[in-house]
Amino acid sequence: MKLYTTSASPNGKRVNVFLAEKGIDIPRVEIDLRAGENLALDFRTRNPFGRVPVLELENGTCIAESVAICRYFDFEHAEPMLFGTTALEQAMVEMWNRRAELNFLLPVAQAFRHLTGYFKDREPVVPEWGQASEQVAREMLPLFDARLGESRHLAGDAFTIADITLAVGLAFARTTRRDLPYDLPNVSRWYERVSSRRSFAD
Amino acid sequence: MKLYTTSASPNGKRVNVFLAEKGIDIPRVEIDLRAGENLALDFRTRNPFGRVPVLELENGTCIAESVAICRYFDFEHAEPMLFGTTALEQAMVEMWNRRAELNFLLPVAQAFRHLTGYFKDREPVVPEWGQASEQVAREMLPLFDARLGESRHLAGDAFTIADITLAVGLAFARTTRRDLPYDLPNVSRWYERVSSRRSFAD
Repeated sequence: MKLYTTSASPNGKRVNVFLAEKGIDIPRVEIDLRAGENLALDFRTRNPFGRVPVLELENGTCIAESVAICRYFDFEHAEPMLFGTTALEQAMVEMWNRRAELNFLLPVAQAFRHLTGYFKDREPVVPEWGQASEQVAREMLPLFDARLGESRHLAGDAFTIADITLAVGLAFARTTRRDLPYDLPNVSRWYERVSSRRSFAD
Repeated sequence: MKLYTTSASPNGKRVNVFLAEKGIDIPRVEIDLRAGENLALDFRTRNPFGRVPVLELENGTCIAESVAICRYFDFEHAEPMLFGTTALEQAMVEMWNRRAELNFLLPVAQAFRHLTGYFKDREPVVPEWGQASEQVAREMLPLFDARLGESRHLAGDAFTIADITLAVGLAFARTTRRDLPYDLPNVSRWYERVSSRRSFAD
């Protein structure tokens, strides 16, 4: 079993934190996104969509998409369950993970790509879209703050993949200096607690 | 139990098809997106993020996000399982559902919003982003075609939520006249078969 990933990318980080939470260690092959290794023919035999990370199983089957890889391991290594257990828990985790991804991590990533032109060698860069995306992330953060004022973690009492997604998004936004309200009280308190977990250390 | 939804929207359609596949019928309250009913205070008490659909349970708990609602019912009403059963099946369904959503349905929706200005009363409209999004959908469709040349459904033999997502995306693209290659052989054959299921009839 082997993980093809870019540990420094948000999706690489998501899977790394998830595996650390589960206490799972598997060999990694680091893919250089900047150099376009993910677009090379060799990588595309593992993932035609050219995205990291990809988990290659012993029999050669490849699982792409960070959340799919995490879900595979949640099922195989049950404790701690990071996607929830009951129907309602699973639905709540799915809801908050999607909210964190679609309303925060994705806009933050779009803002980065379209305001810096980081991937201008391979995609159209639309600064106006970068601005609009940053504005979305800016407007959504208070909604997460409200939630974290009434709940210890995003999906409820327990730490789940939804917290990983939001925390990784926030870390990426800070590193890339997105113009966001980082001082919201509940998000700040939650972020300090979550990002100091051992799984976030590497 | 009550479903607040906009049946004509792609996400409303996704949940409607899913429920029909499961043979579940629950009362619906139609929300008028064009008129902004989803942004009204009353709706935001059910979903602060202002999106449809939202499932309200008997005790008042609200589950937002189409995939979260579907997952809730997949767990509660096991047959037929539309998210897979084993760890590998679940991972494959997650992977293909995400690919269909992030690389097709989402770009198609963005192309619609930014090339028509449908929601210009509430969001910035960036035509250049609409063009770029349509181009992504155009480039991704052949990857789905390749997959459907080797597999009966997206995630394997069985029909799953991933097929619903791609088929709903394709239907929306056709209705809104996105400029895409609709004549790819495997996608066309699969689409004809899938979209003629009874669950797609309404």
